[in-house]
Amino acid sequence: MTIPKRRSIRHIVLLAALLGALAAAGPGGLSWAKDDPKLRQAIEAANGQFIAATARGDAAALAALYTDEGQVLPPGGEPQTGREALKIFWQGALASGMKQAKLETVELTEAGDLAFEIGRFRLYGADGKLMESGKDLVVWKRERGVWKIHRDIWNDSPPPIGN
Amino acid sequence: MTIPKRRSIRHIVLLAALLGALAAAGPGGLSWAKDDPKLRQAIEAANGQFIAATARGDAAALAALYTDEGQVLPPGGEPQTGREALKIFWQGALASGMKQAKLETVELTEAGDLAFEIGRFRLYGADGKLMESGKDLVVWKRERGVWKIHRDIWNDSPPPIGN
Repeated sequence: MTIPKRRSIRHIVLLAALLGALAAAGPGGLSWAKDDPKLRQAIEAANGQFIAATARGDAAALAALYTDEGQVLPPGGEPQTGREALKIFWQGALASGMKQAKLETVELTEAGDLAFEIGRFRLYGADGKLMESGKDLVVWKRERGVWKIHRDIWNDSPPPIGN
Repeated sequence: MTIPKRRSIRHIVLLAALLGALAAAGPGGLSWAKDDPKLRQAIEAANGQFIAATARGDAAALAALYTDEGQVLPPGGEPQTGREALKIFWQGALASGMKQAKLETVELTEAGDLAFEIGRFRLYGADGKLMESGKDLVVWKRERGVWKIHRDIWNDSPPPIGN
């Protein structure tokens, strides 16, 4: 019976090592994957929906791209939180003449059920005239399995010459 | 020898379960801790250093609060990346009269070695006059064990009445 006992001890040591590894891999110590292709696909699809909803003038569809507690932090205004406030916010932007959006993902970094995206945007009016251009930082969150916009802040910067 | 064998099988099953748990706890599936007191302490200390460096007019100390590839995305200007560019950026802000900063953390969320912070800020000139007020979104990153500013974007919004 000595050999089996030794085996059991080895297994217990191995279990302890695994439990230690589990503890070390907790939220504080976990490394993060950068620019996972599946994540990038999901974010690009969501940004495509944003562009399509803008072209349709559909504020409810824009608001639906955010998490339940999603928030915009717009220049010159107070933060707006939650789907109803977001719908009203985007209705206002559409009413002010926003007809077309261009979005470009510059950087995308995953961190568990969160991800952050640095982007560039341009908003155009009915006549194709550039209304606003700048950069944004979006915190995405996987909510009920779907990547949604959780925090959304942007500011202006001049577009490149010739654009 | 049958009993020890059964034990070994039990151990193998247990090991498999643990390995499964480890795999499930990978970057994609890990839940994130919200507003960990240790993280909050570290971020508040770093924000305290930001305020002190502003008061001293020390652009190098401001730049040192960012990661090696840290980036600001300032309103009206292009993103500035890396410690030397950040030093020049903050030198410009200090030269334009920035003498005092007030920073308030509104929300702080940890995600492994990253965290994001929603904050409010006010910048004052030499005469104590409010120069700029608004909100910011900062992506913090733990670099060589120290929480540093990794991505930093802000925009203006009117301060509350009476402030």
